[in-house]
Amino acid sequence: MEDKHMLMIPGPTPVPEQVLLEMAKHPIGHRSAAFSKIMAEVTENLQWLFQTKNDVFCLAASGTGAMEAGLINFINAGDKVLVGENGKFGERWAIICDTYGMDVERVKAPWGEALDPAIFKAKLEADTAKEIKAVVITHSETSTGVLNDLETISGYVKAHGALMIVDAVTSLGSCNVPTDAWGLDVVASGSQKGFMLPPGLGFVSVSDKAWAAYEHAKIPRFYLDLKSAQKNLAKNTTPFTPPVNLIFGLKASLAMMKREGLENIFARHKRLTEATRAAVKALGLKTFAPDGNASTAVTAVDPAPLGAEDVRKAIAQQFDISLAGGQDDYKGKIFRIGHLGFVHDRDILTAIAALEATLHGLGHTDFESGAGVKAAATVFQKSAS
Amino acid sequence: MEDKHMLMIPGPTPVPEQVLLEMAKHPIGHRSAAFSKIMAEVTENLQWLFQTKNDVFCLAASGTGAMEAGLINFINAGDKVLVGENGKFGERWAIICDTYGMDVERVKAPWGEALDPAIFKAKLEADTAKEIKAVVITHSETSTGVLNDLETISGYVKAHGALMIVDAVTSLGSCNVPTDAWGLDVVASGSQKGFMLPPGLGFVSVSDKAWAAYEHAKIPRFYLDLKSAQKNLAKNTTPFTPPVNLIFGLKASLAMMKREGLENIFARHKRLTEATRAAVKALGLKTFAPDGNASTAVTAVDPAPLGAEDVRKAIAQQFDISLAGGQDDYKGKIFRIGHLGFVHDRDILTAIAALEATLHGLGHTDFESGAGVKAAATVFQKSAS
Repeated sequence: MEDKHMLMIPGPTPVPEQVLLEMAKHPIGHRSAAFSKIMAEVTENLQWLFQTKNDVFCLAASGTGAMEAGLINFINAGDKVLVGENGKFGERWAIICDTYGMDVERVKAPWGEALDPAIFKAKLEADTAKEIKAVVITHSETSTGVLNDLETISGYVKAHGALMIVDAVTSLGSCNVPTDAWGLDVVASGSQKGFMLPPGLGFVSVSDKAWAAYEHAKIPRFYLDLKSAQKNLAKNTTPFTPPVNLIFGLKASLAMMKREGLENIFARHKRLTEATRAAVKALGLKTFAPDGNASTAVTAVDPAPLGAEDVRKAIAQQFDISLAGGQDDYKGKIFRIGHLGFVHDRDILTAIAALEATLHGLGHTDFESGAGVKAAATVFQKSAS
Repeated sequence: MEDKHMLMIPGPTPVPEQVLLEMAKHPIGHRSAAFSKIMAEVTENLQWLFQTKNDVFCLAASGTGAMEAGLINFINAGDKVLVGENGKFGERWAIICDTYGMDVERVKAPWGEALDPAIFKAKLEADTAKEIKAVVITHSETSTGVLNDLETISGYVKAHGALMIVDAVTSLGSCNVPTDAWGLDVVASGSQKGFMLPPGLGFVSVSDKAWAAYEHAKIPRFYLDLKSAQKNLAKNTTPFTPPVNLIFGLKASLAMMKREGLENIFARHKRLTEATRAAVKALGLKTFAPDGNASTAVTAVDPAPLGAEDVRKAIAQQFDISLAGGQDDYKGKIFRIGHLGFVHDRDILTAIAALEATLHGLGHTDFESGAGVKAAATVFQKSAS
């Protein structure tokens, strides 16, 4: 049915009506006092969301552009970098580091499993010559639904002295990412995730320690250079024309997030995650990521012996719900339910009810009728009490 | 008065209501068949607007990002490049080339004057060793309102064999830029200009000759790498999450442009430019760029002895019209009237009437009452007959 589409993928995520309408306003000049006022408010609220006193920049770029900026402004060709790799995005950051001639050591875990902090500890402690310049971690691995133990790993990195560079693309706004408390030097994210906005804005925060590394950074860059962003942000402006209307939307979405409050946002995402996982299991399907390292943004599901693409296709056709597929080797093997950003308990009940009906339709009936919805509802009731 | 703002700057430019509302739709997944269909349509229409069979890419970036992509994918460090520099944007492209270690020769003209094609001709003809790898020209120099003679210069570049790389940020959609007919190898633009869209999308077209140069291009790049954009566009998708809602808007604005037709769009901008220039002169002010090289996107005005900032401030306060100021050395010395994109004869009459009243208010009365509006109206009548 036209206009009945329901987006349950880990980005783009649903956007509230008040944000959409804000984006539909006539643009204004980006060098105007009115726009600088918006930039000042947005920057202050981004610092609130990132839990930091560091600079936080808005770039006209995707999350990948923000991550690339977070790497090439602070690391040199030849520098040793440990990159955590347990999914598509960890792989991507390692490839970016390769592209720029960094000396990349990949610390791997299989897709669907979490990175082992002990390996980072051992490698960092063994590096008495302090050759490791940075550690790059994907906090929430969107491709697998695994949440890596960033707090523990960043503790080891801090003890060592290397820069801690974090892909928080799907963790920011869905779980606790206390930039300053955890000593995260560079944190990157993207608008189409926990920010309840369409894609088109990348965000990156930079610590004083990262700025010190910037002074020795030699990789050529212009559009993604962050010093010019810093100089301009001091005047509440940007070096290049910013996506004015997306920033109108960002102003509105950050204001909504502030009204909800960080603790409530995190509790909501935790509840949605637990409900989704309990429901999926009650339907006789396997969650791909372990309970102890479940991303609060996305739940990957292994529906074997059903085909993941058959499930996705059927739920899209019958109920107009978009789920995400698996990526690379896991295409056809898993599907992914996004539950970050503008997502609410009711949306999970809806998606699970539709998933139940879809599984039935595909001949998978190895569960009690209503088991998924009941499991989700039980989580919601427990959280409410 | 609230919401009565009128944008007459050379970007962001006004956006039609139907485009704004398109952008306010709920986003959809960027890996969906529905989105690929939009990408296919948008790409075909971009090729129509660029008048090319070449690839045309949409990047989540500003025009500067698109230009940087257009440079670093095809030129190496150490390569000799001629960069035309007669304003802020020409300067910027020379700085980008410097940043990446290219061997830059600046071919300069003073701000407010056009580049001399004969200098390019002489330098290219003298280069019998074919050391010059590319010539970089800003077609419409937004900072000064000068339109450089791209057709003539590109003819010399074609005869030589170097790549012709063009900043068409404010010329595309405001005047004729026949990419294939003029042999333009790389053409970059941005959404907030002639495209009648908010900022946030950069565009870049790439010729076969530029792709041949790509094969030897060694500057490291990932986010701005165009080969991955090409591979993905072959499947009507993008390497990274695209700004879905801006692309919804682009679909609508390109459809509007097709309905108007290229010839009508160019004729409209020519008419608006002539009317603006005639009116400004009738008001006793000086146009900054010469008549023979007037940008069809923006008219820069020297209001001496009045201060340019005084004019801008007064017209903003009393009539809620935003004009652009001068940049760098010309801050306070010129103001700029944008007339590209979603701008119509009526808007020019409005802006000129308000400018007349503003000049009166500032004590500049050295013109017959109504002279500006009359001069503009005369141009419109002549065009209509």
